[in-house]
Amino acid sequence: MSATPYQQLEQEWKRLHAFRGALALLRWDAAVMMPKGSAEIRGEQLAALETEHHTLLTSPRVSRLLDRAQANTQGSSDWQLANLREMRRQRDHAIATPVSLVSRLARATATAEVKWIAARRGNDFALFAPHLEEVLHLVRDKAQLLGQALNLAPYDALIDEFSPGVTMTDIDAMFKALSRRLPTLIREAMALQQKTPALPITGRFPVAKQRQLVVELMKAFGFPFDGGRIDDSEHPFTEGVPGDIRITTRYDAEDLFSGVLGALHETGHAMYDLGLPREWRDQPVGRDRGMAIQESQALLIEMIVCRSRPFVRYLLPLLAKHFGVSGPEWEADNVYARLARVQRGLIRVDADELTYPLHVQLRYELEKKLLSGALAVRELPDAWAQFMRERFDVEPATMQEGCLQDIHWAAGSFGYFPSYALGAAIAAQLYEKLRDSVAGLDEQIARGEFGGLFGWLREHVHGFGAKLPTQELLKLATGKPLSAAATLRYLEGKYLEDPASRSAAA
Amino acid sequence: MSATPYQQLEQEWKRLHAFRGALALLRWDAAVMMPKGSAEIRGEQLAALETEHHTLLTSPRVSRLLDRAQANTQGSSDWQLANLREMRRQRDHAIATPVSLVSRLARATATAEVKWIAARRGNDFALFAPHLEEVLHLVRDKAQLLGQALNLAPYDALIDEFSPGVTMTDIDAMFKALSRRLPTLIREAMALQQKTPALPITGRFPVAKQRQLVVELMKAFGFPFDGGRIDDSEHPFTEGVPGDIRITTRYDAEDLFSGVLGALHETGHAMYDLGLPREWRDQPVGRDRGMAIQESQALLIEMIVCRSRPFVRYLLPLLAKHFGVSGPEWEADNVYARLARVQRGLIRVDADELTYPLHVQLRYELEKKLLSGALAVRELPDAWAQFMRERFDVEPATMQEGCLQDIHWAAGSFGYFPSYALGAAIAAQLYEKLRDSVAGLDEQIARGEFGGLFGWLREHVHGFGAKLPTQELLKLATGKPLSAAATLRYLEGKYLEDPASRSAAA
Repeated sequence: MSATPYQQLEQEWKRLHAFRGALALLRWDAAVMMPKGSAEIRGEQLAALETEHHTLLTSPRVSRLLDRAQANTQGSSDWQLANLREMRRQRDHAIATPVSLVSRLARATATAEVKWIAARRGNDFALFAPHLEEVLHLVRDKAQLLGQALNLAPYDALIDEFSPGVTMTDIDAMFKALSRRLPTLIREAMALQQKTPALPITGRFPVAKQRQLVVELMKAFGFPFDGGRIDDSEHPFTEGVPGDIRITTRYDAEDLFSGVLGALHETGHAMYDLGLPREWRDQPVGRDRGMAIQESQALLIEMIVCRSRPFVRYLLPLLAKHFGVSGPEWEADNVYARLARVQRGLIRVDADELTYPLHVQLRYELEKKLLSGALAVRELPDAWAQFMRERFDVEPATMQEGCLQDIHWAAGSFGYFPSYALGAAIAAQLYEKLRDSVAGLDEQIARGEFGGLFGWLREHVHGFGAKLPTQELLKLATGKPLSAAATLRYLEGKYLEDPASRSAAA
Repeated sequence: MSATPYQQLEQEWKRLHAFRGALALLRWDAAVMMPKGSAEIRGEQLAALETEHHTLLTSPRVSRLLDRAQANTQGSSDWQLANLREMRRQRDHAIATPVSLVSRLARATATAEVKWIAARRGNDFALFAPHLEEVLHLVRDKAQLLGQALNLAPYDALIDEFSPGVTMTDIDAMFKALSRRLPTLIREAMALQQKTPALPITGRFPVAKQRQLVVELMKAFGFPFDGGRIDDSEHPFTEGVPGDIRITTRYDAEDLFSGVLGALHETGHAMYDLGLPREWRDQPVGRDRGMAIQESQALLIEMIVCRSRPFVRYLLPLLAKHFGVSGPEWEADNVYARLARVQRGLIRVDADELTYPLHVQLRYELEKKLLSGALAVRELPDAWAQFMRERFDVEPATMQEGCLQDIHWAAGSFGYFPSYALGAAIAAQLYEKLRDSVAGLDEQIARGEFGGLFGWLREHVHGFGAKLPTQELLKLATGKPLSAAATLRYLEGKYLEDPASRSAAA
């Protein structure tokens, strides 16, 4: 019995999956273990494997097999059909961009990233501008080609790479709803906050003990240490493949929550990866459903669960155990208030839940204008400052606090930023449904039991892999299409709660 | 200007080199960092990359380019000619063994290795025997095919994989010379040893401090920590590519010298890799010259240099600094005597310089007989025991102490064992020349200065890469062909030295 075209495709993707896993390890090692002087050698290894991956994916053999498999899908299960569709999607994305453009983009972004670092340090936008121009020019070409191949508007084609099935229309609608309410909500929340200011939390928290705490929390979540690791790195990230998931965080001995919450954010990503359908592990349909859902899982854990009152109740005895902390600033109310603090800041990655969507909206609006040509690269710093002034009442004093704070554009990642805001909205929508569905969820969390939480997420999100487009997955899980409504209900409930009623609620 | 066939070949090998580097990292990570449960996933990644490497190496394109490049070598440098010859060599080795045989051998050895572990634990040779039969059967086929392709006797073809240019005739001559002298030399050395027995060296040596000592020693040798690492693993090994060399060792808190000397053995390998010609780093001619030379570099450092009187003089203050040791057992003479102890043992990896060649000879003789069919697998335990009885006056009580102590045959590595004895002989021959050539070598070593040692090795061994066959490289470096003469001079000088004269000599 010879293998069917579909079975042959599964074999091809098994090989591609092995390449992806090897690439993931090369990247992880570069950030965590590799000697400083070995970057150039690693770059050549990554380029060789990525080129080979691309060549395998876009080979005439794969195209032929896809055509033959799609010509006869009789008797295929819905998983197999979805797998075939995802194979086609990956191949279409890969083949739409010619290798020459891929490698020009790789070189241009490599240079732009280096210049970005220098420009950021020197507060010198002019140093970065020509390189951003070059990247933008190539990304525009790519968006055009991708759009033609996928029958999408150019910017939608870029979004599709990160969050399949989401379009500008969806994102515009979401930001419209959010920006109608958020500015006043931020004012109200900050006014309430000022009525009962939280006590500052200071001290030294030895990094070795923070590591122990993180491992204890990850174990409570069910992270399997026989199929994953946590290490330190410059910036927190999640790498690897299910069965060998590697997460990292960065600890700060002066700031207990930064490293710990960073690790829990990554654990959210990892738990998603670990909950993907095991029997499809090495196939496209067994992968995650893109960055919007990925971010939703990370933000649901970090921002919603781990900054909630029940989690603070669970956490406090652990903090006492690991760090011997006590005193009024370590009371549940105060720790909760510290974790829910709202600030109009300049930096996206330090932003709270209320101001975060506005940071993303800024980038979303500017990158669309940059791509369409409505905004010139040289006008970027002023446009950025104007948005911040009008919406945040603050203005960046340096480029590092302004339009040079993120690496994404230097790296050519246009269409990526919306995933963060989409992720936050999806997280709120999932959490609303989750609380309705899992009885006693708060009590479970307060006892350090996370089986109910992750059980629901596996059943309704993780276990679907890439079987459904982003929007359909969300609708099936929550009964509702993507909207900002749940986010606003969640944010109002949390941030307009009267501080006076807090103790009673806890 | 289009690239010449030779230039195109260099590009192909640049890619192959990147794959080799990626494979090295996957193996290193598996032994040092990987979670226990991820072995199966890693196996698939390794298989995918190895298959791809093999496919690239044996492609019709490479064959065509090799023919065209070899048809016109006018104006080529001798390095380019040597590079072309090594390209052809790699490709001939790869293409001689059909992919089906490669994968049958991969499966058979994977099973045999697992059975070997169980058989070893259970002292049950019968459990392992059928799997060794299977491996042997496939290796015999491979040796036949390789021999035909390379115009060599089957066993010589296997040796050629590990130590190019060395044949059975060379090895037979060496063992003949060694076995004429070694048995009596061992008796004489042991008699001398008994006249002044060394004091036992005991104590607890915290592993963290051993690590610090090893790093200090490696730095003194010139190991560049911005292009390499040292970590812990079950068995010491050296992995990676020049520019990113990873070595490991295994520490024993009760036995100071085992982990430290293990690390220094691996550092010997690493210093060789690091001394390879930098401009040929990603080409075949820039690689090491096979296992015999590799072992010679490791043994030269571990056995000859680091167990010498001058090195002990350098080492003792470091031991006092790191471990605060003192007392009569820590006098230079006693530490030296401990490091030069001779014992008729059963285990190869624990053997001293005098008995080691006999351990290797046993394996060499038996594997030749197994391959030719003169010895049946079922007769192996008895043949092993008989050799040990006759030459060592000891007999293994268990299979673990006998013919199941090494993994090599289970792994299909026939033709590998001789590299160990060749390496020891080459090390002695190089050291004799080195002492003649570098004035004040002993004094340098005693002061912890290793520039003279490694400078000479770079100039006469490392810097040649794979430009010359093993034998020619040795002749160019020492002025003499491979022989056991230098080994015997070295061993007699060291082990027949009268203990009474030691203090004066130190």
